[in-house]
Amino acid sequence: STPAPAAASLSYTERAAKSKSELGAKLLRLMDEKKTNLALAADVLRSEELLRIAEEVGPEICILKTHVDILEDYEPGFPDRLREIADRHNFLIFEDRKFADIGNTVKHQYSGGVHRIAKWSDITNSHIVSGASSVASLKEVGKPLGRGLLLIAQMSTADANTSAQTVENSLKAAREHADFVFGFICQEKIAKEADDVAFVHMTPGVHLQREGDNQGQHYNTPQHVITQKKGITESNDRRGEAKRYREAGWSAYQSTLNH
Amino acid sequence: STPAPAAASLSYTERAAKSKSELGAKLLRLMDEKKTNLALAADVLRSEELLRIAEEVGPEICILKTHVDILEDYEPGFPDRLREIADRHNFLIFEDRKFADIGNTVKHQYSGGVHRIAKWSDITNSHIVSGASSVASLKEVGKPLGRGLLLIAQMSTADANTSAQTVENSLKAAREHADFVFGFICQEKIAKEADDVAFVHMTPGVHLQREGDNQGQHYNTPQHVITQKKGITESNDRRGEAKRYREAGWSAYQSTLNH
Repeated sequence: STPAPAAASLSYTERAAKSKSELGAKLLRLMDEKKTNLALAADVLRSEELLRIAEEVGPEICILKTHVDILEDYEPGFPDRLREIADRHNFLIFEDRKFADIGNTVKHQYSGGVHRIAKWSDITNSHIVSGASSVASLKEVGKPLGRGLLLIAQMSTADANTSAQTVENSLKAAREHADFVFGFICQEKIAKEADDVAFVHMTPGVHLQREGDNQGQHYNTPQHVITQKKGITESNDRRGEAKRYREAGWSAYQSTLNH
Repeated sequence: STPAPAAASLSYTERAAKSKSELGAKLLRLMDEKKTNLALAADVLRSEELLRIAEEVGPEICILKTHVDILEDYEPGFPDRLREIADRHNFLIFEDRKFADIGNTVKHQYSGGVHRIAKWSDITNSHIVSGASSVASLKEVGKPLGRGLLLIAQMSTADANTSAQTVENSLKAAREHADFVFGFICQEKIAKEADDVAFVHMTPGVHLQREGDNQGQHYNTPQHVITQKKGITESNDRRGEAKRYREAGWSAYQSTLNH
């Protein structure tokens, strides 16, 4: 139980070297290479719009977060089209499925059905509600494919039912399955031990603070992957807005490095 | 906070009269009319097999529990075919989706996507992890359609993360939205107040105890909807096995009535 004083000064690439997760290491290296810690949540209802957003914003982001189960016109060919854009622009796909069932069920939900999430989504996420046993089941499907999992330790809603026990159980399961679980959906930094430095913290709905002439933009969570949604998707200039968020996030990250 | 001493002796029909949920009342009346408190979990991967099970076991059950998101060959016409069987054999459909996201997302997941759950599933369920706000969002979609929701207060896995707080928050949200939430997925009776008598408790994986010559079958939870899975779906005589479970469950229920 040693605290990790140096964590704040490690680069993403340095943290990648300490990751036990193939996908976690890939993401952390990608972030330094591409100079972005920006994820975009694209909660749209039409496939064509999602693909258009991916194409426009792709060069600025490290992760595109999707909800394929709200796409009204989802077709089996859709993931291949999204995958092609992701590979060309070098970002990862994160299907925000929030698995929340027992092991045997989540295994089928992850690998099967019409959506076949494991086949095309680099990242997915899971609640810890059914215990670490469900994480082990997801790992059986995802690890051989080089996929990674985020555990949902905290929710952003004011009346969320997540508790200190949820955070503890998420940390425990993540450390036990660090070859598959590479981080957390959370509201604050929760993995603080020396061995935790490779874990990624992903915080939904971070907003740029606009002060006066758009200077003074800041993030409270510079070590995290920051996620933006409507601020970008509902803008008339998605690419430009994404660039602005990316630069602010990158600058916050760089200010934490010791060089 | 008055305990409900009479609850154990109320019939389903008497409880139906006290339900604030259209669907909850419908289920409770159906159970008495059809003389069954048996639900069947049909966790199969092919549409045709699910439809065959529904056809065979339909006359014995009050609820068929589905996971459409694990059906590899799901097609938009599937729900209509299942709905026709359900209406003909007079059972309700329960898509076991276990919603676990914020309100705006679960609303789309419930109404939209390729599965359009709200359009054909009488019942669905939700975790309370995002708070009562997500229940309110599901209600916006489901209540106008006469649908009902079960809240997942407890999970059956040994390492489940559900807590006393989860049970309390589930009860609170259910009482607040009793016109839509008609019961719980749980391991024991959790709603014990006088005003709670209409709530249905649904306990997964209840098994018949076989003793010697199959006599002495009993359920510990006679007031609950009992759910069976492989004991029926993997039997060579599904209909016969379902009948056996149904009769044991019905006899347990009848022994609690004061007449």
